[in-house]
Amino acid sequence: MQVCFFAVSGVLEKEDAIAHIKRSIEKTYRKKGDEIVQMNLNAVDQTLENLHEVNVQTTLHTPHPTPSIKPPVADTAPPFVREVLGKMIAGCGDRLPVSALPVDGTYPTGTAKYEKRNIAQEIPVWDTDVCVQCGKCVMVCPHSVIRSKVYDVEALETAPETFKHTNARDHDWQGLKFTIQVAVEDCTGCGICVDVCPAKNKSQPRLKAINMNPQPPLRESERSNWDFFLDLPNPDRPSLNLHKISQQQMQEPLFEFSGACAGCGETPYLKLVSQLFGDRALIANATGCSSIYGGNLPTTPWTHNAEGRGPAWSNSLFEDNAEFGLGFRVSIDKQREFASELLQQLASELGEELVNAILNATQHDEADIYEQRDRVALLKEGIQTLLEQISDNTLKSKIQNLKSLADLFVKKSVWIIGGDGWAYDIGFGGLDHVLASGRNVNVLVLDTEVYSNTGGQMSKSTPRGAVAKFAAGGKPAPKKDLGLIAMTYGNVYVASVAMGARDEHTLKAFLEAEAYDGPSLIIAYSHCIAHGIDMSTAMQNQKAAVDSGRWLLYRYHPDRRQQGANPLQLDSHAPKIPLERSMYLENRFKMLTKSQPEAAKRLLEEAQQDVNTRWQMYQYLAARPTQTARED
Amino acid sequence: MQVCFFAVSGVLEKEDAIAHIKRSIEKTYRKKGDEIVQMNLNAVDQTLENLHEVNVQTTLHTPHPTPSIKPPVADTAPPFVREVLGKMIAGCGDRLPVSALPVDGTYPTGTAKYEKRNIAQEIPVWDTDVCVQCGKCVMVCPHSVIRSKVYDVEALETAPETFKHTNARDHDWQGLKFTIQVAVEDCTGCGICVDVCPAKNKSQPRLKAINMNPQPPLRESERSNWDFFLDLPNPDRPSLNLHKISQQQMQEPLFEFSGACAGCGETPYLKLVSQLFGDRALIANATGCSSIYGGNLPTTPWTHNAEGRGPAWSNSLFEDNAEFGLGFRVSIDKQREFASELLQQLASELGEELVNAILNATQHDEADIYEQRDRVALLKEGIQTLLEQISDNTLKSKIQNLKSLADLFVKKSVWIIGGDGWAYDIGFGGLDHVLASGRNVNVLVLDTEVYSNTGGQMSKSTPRGAVAKFAAGGKPAPKKDLGLIAMTYGNVYVASVAMGARDEHTLKAFLEAEAYDGPSLIIAYSHCIAHGIDMSTAMQNQKAAVDSGRWLLYRYHPDRRQQGANPLQLDSHAPKIPLERSMYLENRFKMLTKSQPEAAKRLLEEAQQDVNTRWQMYQYLAARPTQTARED
Repeated sequence: MQVCFFAVSGVLEKEDAIAHIKRSIEKTYRKKGDEIVQMNLNAVDQTLENLHEVNVQTTLHTPHPTPSIKPPVADTAPPFVREVLGKMIAGCGDRLPVSALPVDGTYPTGTAKYEKRNIAQEIPVWDTDVCVQCGKCVMVCPHSVIRSKVYDVEALETAPETFKHTNARDHDWQGLKFTIQVAVEDCTGCGICVDVCPAKNKSQPRLKAINMNPQPPLRESERSNWDFFLDLPNPDRPSLNLHKISQQQMQEPLFEFSGACAGCGETPYLKLVSQLFGDRALIANATGCSSIYGGNLPTTPWTHNAEGRGPAWSNSLFEDNAEFGLGFRVSIDKQREFASELLQQLASELGEELVNAILNATQHDEADIYEQRDRVALLKEGIQTLLEQISDNTLKSKIQNLKSLADLFVKKSVWIIGGDGWAYDIGFGGLDHVLASGRNVNVLVLDTEVYSNTGGQMSKSTPRGAVAKFAAGGKPAPKKDLGLIAMTYGNVYVASVAMGARDEHTLKAFLEAEAYDGPSLIIAYSHCIAHGIDMSTAMQNQKAAVDSGRWLLYRYHPDRRQQGANPLQLDSHAPKIPLERSMYLENRFKMLTKSQPEAAKRLLEEAQQDVNTRWQMYQYLAARPTQTARED
Repeated sequence: MQVCFFAVSGVLEKEDAIAHIKRSIEKTYRKKGDEIVQMNLNAVDQTLENLHEVNVQTTLHTPHPTPSIKPPVADTAPPFVREVLGKMIAGCGDRLPVSALPVDGTYPTGTAKYEKRNIAQEIPVWDTDVCVQCGKCVMVCPHSVIRSKVYDVEALETAPETFKHTNARDHDWQGLKFTIQVAVEDCTGCGICVDVCPAKNKSQPRLKAINMNPQPPLRESERSNWDFFLDLPNPDRPSLNLHKISQQQMQEPLFEFSGACAGCGETPYLKLVSQLFGDRALIANATGCSSIYGGNLPTTPWTHNAEGRGPAWSNSLFEDNAEFGLGFRVSIDKQREFASELLQQLASELGEELVNAILNATQHDEADIYEQRDRVALLKEGIQTLLEQISDNTLKSKIQNLKSLADLFVKKSVWIIGGDGWAYDIGFGGLDHVLASGRNVNVLVLDTEVYSNTGGQMSKSTPRGAVAKFAAGGKPAPKKDLGLIAMTYGNVYVASVAMGARDEHTLKAFLEAEAYDGPSLIIAYSHCIAHGIDMSTAMQNQKAAVDSGRWLLYRYHPDRRQQGANPLQLDSHAPKIPLERSMYLENRFKMLTKSQPEAAKRLLEEAQQDVNTRWQMYQYLAARPTQTARED
């Protein structure tokens, strides 16, 4: 805009003005490196090349809203979405009466899908022949726009002409059809899916099983294909092998189309939580990026399945989110306790066998949970029948209470989620208190190593040598070892994961953390635009972080001690590339070599030393001989 | 009072009323054990035995204050103490005008000595012949009422007749006289000094070198002896061997006569800080017992030496005290930086040699610091001369600034102090942040393992199995390992000490922590009335805690890594008594065996398991092979 202004306004001589702008760019961005300077200079030149006159009609008389503009949400959306959220999307939120808004601030979930943003210029396009059906593209997609399904061939009878499919390769799915479908209107075009695709097109080595192509020509056809795809049946959850990504990624995501940056490194972890546990999850979300893209008005990306089950989500403050989430756990446990008392008191009326089955259900896996859901459905039927038969008011009141609490018999999954600013810094005192409580909560730290949402300030998670606000000369101290701190408790499950480095390890950690009957902490490496990286290849940055030893993969499982094993399992290999090869892929580190080369050199040496020290220490800890529970 | 009331009022039949009271006692204290019940029953019986009529005159006409009652503070006290604090002591604080109080809330220190409470029925009496002059009684005294001095024999010329002395035994003090003197009017009679006295009176095995005797007969003579003792010269600080308790304890305490409980386990550590570093210390004190007895109106126990040097002390909140203390450090460093700039700018006027000596002074030990104080005195003289000679206003203003900052050239010692409620719980987030800052602050945690001042609530420091508020059934989780958490940073000096178990270890840790140029954390086991123990033998409880492995002694010194050594040094021996022998010395554990014997048994087993696990883990950590700094 500045370039255009000085090119046409005549305030200064055009050439003179442009030269000033370019000098200013050189001065401002010099410390970020020549590459950044050149990109900005190119932007000026390209602006000038594309500057052209737009003829504006002198009068404009159209009713509001303009009939030629499509409504902000589809006509098929529910009334609240059309009449309230749609108005906000159209920028007319201030015309809404107060009475249009939910009285208690509770918003319906699953509304992001009605806001078709169409922001991607290019979208991934699936090549049925090259695809190995590994599910990696589905797993990494930050906006849940790539999905896969397997289904009977009969389902294809009503398929649109352009709908793609092939034979399922998995032995478990012999005879079924397989499709990868993209929601092209929701895609941001980040290209991460293409980057992680391991398949090679042998005839055209430049191509993979999924490749970027312009969106506009495909928009209409893919819209129909997406709608058709959504109507295909979802797989039978209890029969999926959740340890295989290709099967696990068939689980319906209950977090989709968020407002996160294109290529976001955090959202794939949230999507994973939503797939695995979303239909029985409660989520306490700390202030930060995830509270913004996870709960930004007017729409919300958290959603529910066809049965109406999905995460209950709420945001709390930086300084109390862990405690907030612990409150979920405490209240669930208390309500479940009360429900159990009522159930025992009403056992003869409701049937001893059903009551005992409900109270003693193990609920270790999906199949168990499905069985318990069936029992609770039976219980609710029994309650309804009883309510119609009984006139005693005391008894009736007990049964009413049980009715309102019956869903508590299905195991709930409590998640406490936030970024490193929350977990390492402002909310750390509370996080520590919650971990020390011994209660069954799952803490997920989306670790971008910097305050991303608030503007790039250093946190205690920021690695040594990274440039951030309050660390303009590179952070002088090493990254705080939050995982090691949590391990000092002994009864906290702790995992450090990086999806881009080892996706199956990430999946395993999430499954173990949730299954562990105590506090769990997952620290998830999350690349971020604040790192100064190419977001389309950001999963490679994750891999480099692990390959250099800057990020360790491990799982500390307290239950292993009972089996006479060391609870700490180091899942990384020894560092195989020098730290600088990982660090200098990222401008947050590289820029210091321009602005303060001497400091950069010293900090790199110290950071390499940190990595060596930490690796050796973790090796030593993980090598501790196994002991029996009694002796340990 | 209740017993007296029902014995004389006739509201109920006396025998009936007393029987009810006794039944109530049995019910209330049953869970604390038979011993406690019996003690309370005895109190009832003894009350009845000692109940006698007091004849009250029907009229009472005396002016206020009663002339026969001594003034609350001595006439020799400074005017502010007499006229303001004295009024408060007399209970007439509400008659003071607002203008009598300090405008900014700053109170003079060293005022507790004017409040002679005379609360001890028995006081320690020194036996010159039996004493080995070890200094232990001086070290453990919670109220700094036992002191020792060595001095030339000439000083005895004006000594009161009853003043005791003997020949100094230390080789460094050949030819000098030695005295241990008690401030009998300030003593609380706790008897801890007698308990720790290692000397035996061979002729009367029941007696030691210090023994309890009734106070009243000795009050007058010992008052004179105390005053005479105070006037004896203090030892030359720089020439004391601070690694020997007998010599170190000659340092003047700058914390005395506090309002802490008789036998307090916290105050000996505070006194030690005041002796070692008090003349250049700034103390940030978290809410808790130490903020109450350390800063209770009307008087304050923090004091200053004859040169007017003593700790600057302030109290801050549970939730921000670490940050509050860090602020001291940051402002000192900034002011010192500014002072250094000014000094360099004025070098030619003030003399290059002096300026360089001041700027490059090492200040590693007492002797260094005394030399620097001398240099600063010279500097101040130079500044004064300059100010009188110079008329240039810019220069004058610089010199004025330097004058106000000159004292900053003497190394300051920043202490951040609080209890476990602060350090493990409410202030932990801030404490972690301060430790992570890498700045040179010293954190002292007075660990009573329970919220002592606020009424005995469980903290994360409370050990498994201890009964506390919110843990009526015994704390189900193990004690949080704060030291291990701090060690994860690698650059934090961490020590775990227990004066009653190994006093020289405590002394060494305090010296190392303060000398370390970075953050230091000392976790100090502090016995407490809340433990349900005999306070006169409480140092034995400390020893038992260490002997059983329930409390470890260790020092983690980051600098050891540079010497190729393991930074962690485990200073405890392997547990040599079963945990229950330590736990069941204390009613906080024992009472559970009465109220919930099954739970007590299970918790004891688990707690023993905790001890074993922790001991083995620390052994493993401390056994890590030494490495060079480059490889480590």
